[in-house]
Amino acid sequence: MGIPRIAITMGDPAGVGPEIIVKVLSIMEIYDICQPVVVGSKEIIMDAIQMTHRALKVNVVKSPNDGNYRYGSIDILDLDNIRTKDVEYGKVSAKCGKAAGEAIAKAIELAKDDMVDAIVTAPIHKESFKLGGWGKKYVGHTEMLADLTNTKKYTMMLAHGDLRVVHVSTHVSLADAVKLVKKERILEVIKIAHNACVALGIKEPRVAVAGLNPHAGDGGLMGREEIDEILPAIEAARNSGINAEGPVPADTVFSKAMGGWFDIVVTMYHDQGHIPTKTVGFVWDESRKDWKAVSGVNVTLGLPIIRVSVDHGTAFGKAGKGTARTDSLIDAIKVAVRLAENR
Amino acid sequence: MGIPRIAITMGDPAGVGPEIIVKVLSIMEIYDICQPVVVGSKEIIMDAIQMTHRALKVNVVKSPNDGNYRYGSIDILDLDNIRTKDVEYGKVSAKCGKAAGEAIAKAIELAKDDMVDAIVTAPIHKESFKLGGWGKKYVGHTEMLADLTNTKKYTMMLAHGDLRVVHVSTHVSLADAVKLVKKERILEVIKIAHNACVALGIKEPRVAVAGLNPHAGDGGLMGREEIDEILPAIEAARNSGINAEGPVPADTVFSKAMGGWFDIVVTMYHDQGHIPTKTVGFVWDESRKDWKAVSGVNVTLGLPIIRVSVDHGTAFGKAGKGTARTDSLIDAIKVAVRLAENR
Repeated sequence: MGIPRIAITMGDPAGVGPEIIVKVLSIMEIYDICQPVVVGSKEIIMDAIQMTHRALKVNVVKSPNDGNYRYGSIDILDLDNIRTKDVEYGKVSAKCGKAAGEAIAKAIELAKDDMVDAIVTAPIHKESFKLGGWGKKYVGHTEMLADLTNTKKYTMMLAHGDLRVVHVSTHVSLADAVKLVKKERILEVIKIAHNACVALGIKEPRVAVAGLNPHAGDGGLMGREEIDEILPAIEAARNSGINAEGPVPADTVFSKAMGGWFDIVVTMYHDQGHIPTKTVGFVWDESRKDWKAVSGVNVTLGLPIIRVSVDHGTAFGKAGKGTARTDSLIDAIKVAVRLAENR
Repeated sequence: MGIPRIAITMGDPAGVGPEIIVKVLSIMEIYDICQPVVVGSKEIIMDAIQMTHRALKVNVVKSPNDGNYRYGSIDILDLDNIRTKDVEYGKVSAKCGKAAGEAIAKAIELAKDDMVDAIVTAPIHKESFKLGGWGKKYVGHTEMLADLTNTKKYTMMLAHGDLRVVHVSTHVSLADAVKLVKKERILEVIKIAHNACVALGIKEPRVAVAGLNPHAGDGGLMGREEIDEILPAIEAARNSGINAEGPVPADTVFSKAMGGWFDIVVTMYHDQGHIPTKTVGFVWDESRKDWKAVSGVNVTLGLPIIRVSVDHGTAFGKAGKGTARTDSLIDAIKVAVRLAENR
């Protein structure tokens, strides 16, 4: 195998997806590490080229096998499913949502057929996606990916450089999240975390398991979940040969992970994992009232195909200006390449 | 008033306190911003000078008024209450705990009598402190400070550079913390946060209030605390003239605060505030198996005196080697100076 072939879905045409794709594909080095093929609308991508003032052409392909994969021309599998005249930047629209969903469906098909080695997805807008008809079956990307690949168990991994986190629970209230801190689920997520590191080519992953309570409960003084649920899960994981450690107090575990002590951190709830990754990955510039960096990626673990997403939304408020940050999409491509190479 | 006079308590003699004090007082610039007087044992400080190979002398004073406050000689209010032969680095000891507590009591007295403008405290060991006789009345520094200054309402503020956080609750289990997210308490903490910024000389503080649930509840889909408790508290604060904003999702509020959007963040539980401050303040170096940076400070708000603490413990495992990081103590002195200057 040569360098990995990556399908990049265009995302919602009214969001920042098309412009960040064009900006990233105007970086020559991207073509050194992968063969990128955009799945979406030629017309929209040409519009984004104009908007961002990039000296790029487009090359329409019927199949990823037909791509040139040479810097200077964007290979695109044109679904021809949306017109620029139908797109108003920053506006919710059924047409945009429908087109965005079709690109994802096509990319999944390509990955399942081994026509591409991985999928990288630009952001969609949940409201438009719903109006576009996908809402009957799916909330967003992840549910669609799971359904179309027949996957029942999947988990999100957030990564910012060498800081990687997986979650015991995600989109539930904090009160409910506390109740979901149970041995079986923690053990499952420890295994997922271990396997994710192996998939990234890490030989002997060191998995940290965060505590739920302040100071990891301080011996039961501030909550017993560490003693009753987390420690037994860690012990079970160790018995199955996984190098799991903890419970580590949540306020120092991420510094340790970033410093190289751990390869991945199992976190107990959404914000426990999201706060550190976004705090280090997102950099705000108050003088410009804009983000200076928006890095970090989101990997869907457990699928039979490789899927990496940017860690930001459609940014409707700034779409169409050509000023959206590309850090996250670049990271997403790099992580997808690494996963594909270690498959 | 000239530059502020700061009492620095020695901390537990078996911990890193004495050595970091000596190392920091061998930095000439410290004497440009304050008049530091150590409260503790001359013998222990002389031992730490030897251990750290610093070319410093000590100058014993009876009162802070007698200090020379000149670089090269450490002014010390010698309590003469512990011998080096009684100190074993890294070991819990009643004698050490007793001496550490006496230094704190003395420093509080000096601050109450306006003999010093602020107190900066080096770490104590809770177990030794307890064995030393203080445990009958106090868990640690904060309870002692509150009692000896007759303070009922106080709160901890963590600060790392311009990232400042206060907490709605601290040392309780996460399940209990969720239940403590109530309008009255949130409003109280917003006011404390506002006042803390004013005390630091910030003219019109912008106070962010973090959400409790993922995505700040997403309109009630993942928890109702934002709607039922947090938003009403913010509205009440705004009605009283405080520039409070939120609820801001917890995974982006800290990036915004660090970038200058907010001066302080009101957090809903211990780890919500501790994860971001320590993740950015603590830097681990796996090759040396040691912290490369340990910065950040802890300010006790609500006291009639100024008290700033380092944001780390006695580090018993590494005490006596002279290798402990001084970032946090330097930060603590700087924050104490700023608070004293804006009083």
